[in-house]
Amino acid sequence: MSKIHNFSAGPSILNQDVLKKASEAVVNFNNLNLSILEISHRSKDFVAVMDNAVALVKELLEVPQGYSVLFLQGGASTGFLKTILNFMKENGNGAYLNTGAWSKKALKEAEKLGSLTVVASSEDKNFNYIPKGFSVPDNTDYLHITTNNTIFGTQIKNIPTQENTLLIADMSSDIFSRKINVSDYAMIYAGAQKNMGPAGTTLYIVKDELLGNTGRTIPTMLDLTTHITKGSMFNTPPVYPIYVSMLTLEWLKANGGIEWIEKINQEKADLLYNEIDSNPLFEGTAAKEDRSNMNVTFVLTDESKKAVFDSMWKEVGISGINGHRDVGGYRASIYNAMPIESIQVLVDTMKKLIN
Amino acid sequence: MSKIHNFSAGPSILNQDVLKKASEAVVNFNNLNLSILEISHRSKDFVAVMDNAVALVKELLEVPQGYSVLFLQGGASTGFLKTILNFMKENGNGAYLNTGAWSKKALKEAEKLGSLTVVASSEDKNFNYIPKGFSVPDNTDYLHITTNNTIFGTQIKNIPTQENTLLIADMSSDIFSRKINVSDYAMIYAGAQKNMGPAGTTLYIVKDELLGNTGRTIPTMLDLTTHITKGSMFNTPPVYPIYVSMLTLEWLKANGGIEWIEKINQEKADLLYNEIDSNPLFEGTAAKEDRSNMNVTFVLTDESKKAVFDSMWKEVGISGINGHRDVGGYRASIYNAMPIESIQVLVDTMKKLIN
Repeated sequence: MSKIHNFSAGPSILNQDVLKKASEAVVNFNNLNLSILEISHRSKDFVAVMDNAVALVKELLEVPQGYSVLFLQGGASTGFLKTILNFMKENGNGAYLNTGAWSKKALKEAEKLGSLTVVASSEDKNFNYIPKGFSVPDNTDYLHITTNNTIFGTQIKNIPTQENTLLIADMSSDIFSRKINVSDYAMIYAGAQKNMGPAGTTLYIVKDELLGNTGRTIPTMLDLTTHITKGSMFNTPPVYPIYVSMLTLEWLKANGGIEWIEKINQEKADLLYNEIDSNPLFEGTAAKEDRSNMNVTFVLTDESKKAVFDSMWKEVGISGINGHRDVGGYRASIYNAMPIESIQVLVDTMKKLIN
Repeated sequence: MSKIHNFSAGPSILNQDVLKKASEAVVNFNNLNLSILEISHRSKDFVAVMDNAVALVKELLEVPQGYSVLFLQGGASTGFLKTILNFMKENGNGAYLNTGAWSKKALKEAEKLGSLTVVASSEDKNFNYIPKGFSVPDNTDYLHITTNNTIFGTQIKNIPTQENTLLIADMSSDIFSRKINVSDYAMIYAGAQKNMGPAGTTLYIVKDELLGNTGRTIPTMLDLTTHITKGSMFNTPPVYPIYVSMLTLEWLKANGGIEWIEKINQEKADLLYNEIDSNPLFEGTAAKEDRSNMNVTFVLTDESKKAVFDSMWKEVGISGINGHRDVGGYRASIYNAMPIESIQVLVDTMKKLIN
């Protein structure tokens, strides 16, 4: 079979060795002669998976004391809700930076269930840049940001920390891709299905001492304290997505961790953006200083080339680069597991397109 | 390797052919040369999985027109919450039948977020029976039941339908094990990890016309209407748990569906209960007429035999039959995928225990 170059925006490419181990565990996990899918989540073998996954997150991201690491369900969309219930005081106000479709969904939820302040927005230019120089009003309970915008291909390069402001970040599409200072954040959450593993689990990193202060009655499953107390095992966790996440984090650690991947991600992004900038047939859609190292969005300068280019990339086994309908053109998602060789194949194809 | 007889209460045994296909799809799904874990949930290949899974549920359970079938996240514990938000009117009241640990968690959530009426409870006898002959007050919005109680080994044999009462059932541990009349219910929900698939997705079957009547502001992800409108794809669904559920439902259909499995489940349960009743060294813990065909709970009549019996069943490859701490003794979970041969091994071991 021919090699597929998988530029899918998410669920997205995973490391091949991880997938091989993940496949084996479905028929025989840990030589138990049982599938990982059919063992109790309270068995010592799965408890070890959960413990290891949590430990890997703590080690890779250098999570400080006082933070809990949780593997929950519900995706970032449930994270929007958990943000409000766990951090917005009753009759309080959440500050939101509006940088794209997912930021907007986050703030819509705050609009529905509480009240909010949009501190800045790039909606005026179809979210092709990251607003800067805004300030967060004192009377807000937190500032919510989306660190990487998959659809629009932008990424926050300078995290807008502000004294006395609790920072909450949806890092679904760039967690584990670059160094972060966890201590800057009250809470980080991230759906697994880009850099961490398959769809079905959502990572939370939360500063324990900040919880329990909203005055709200929080439903049991949405109260982060529930899950902290029970080590993500209040109810049956999504066993397999957590297992594959653990394998992915093991792969990341074995190769050199965040420092290693951040350097490679920069090389990968540079390779593709350099082609976009030097090839007159292509044009990036995001402001240069805000370009995402995870999702590279670009368009043809001459739309009449579309049919030819589309057949060219399909021919070489490239998959998943059609742009989101909100931007059009192309989006190459180059997450951690994407090898630079696949990006080279894309770049070579772009070079072959004749003016 | 020796055969393991997996009596785990959940996550629990899955069919071996299902596991083999599930394992293959992790390295190469549908001959795409991509893993099912790394394709877009909006790809035609995964949309076909979702559509097929929904169609199989509808066919196997003969779901009538007007009901939606959803594959969501969060487990039955989130189902407790969705029940309240989608069916309990603001300032309304939910009726609950208290038949075990999970019923109790369901009603505790109602206590926390609304108000409730416990119509009957078997807590007086450590939940070893199913209360009968109760009535549901007119001023309640629904009756919530747990059809099978995994911990205590009881199962509701006669569903307490009552005219003008919306019936909501947590069927996590016996869905697809016997014929049900979906039209009896306003909503059915069930965590996958017993009879349907691996942990990580929760099935909802809901009567559409009953939604939208509570007067509550429902958070987006907890509003069933959100997911009905988007066909369980409002956000990224738990792709792999849904895929393995689809494979399991295909296996069930190919073998003869609910009628076939119900008959086999009865034979399996009879085999084990007959041994419990005829062997003086064992005693069932649940009232005979309420015995579960999914979870068979029993104790030794002479506790001094415990060490010997435990070493005997371990010796023959039996796994997962330690009872829950709330009941003690043993619990043999004999879900759909459990072959009668494994139950025979257990029965043979019980017979070999000498008085």
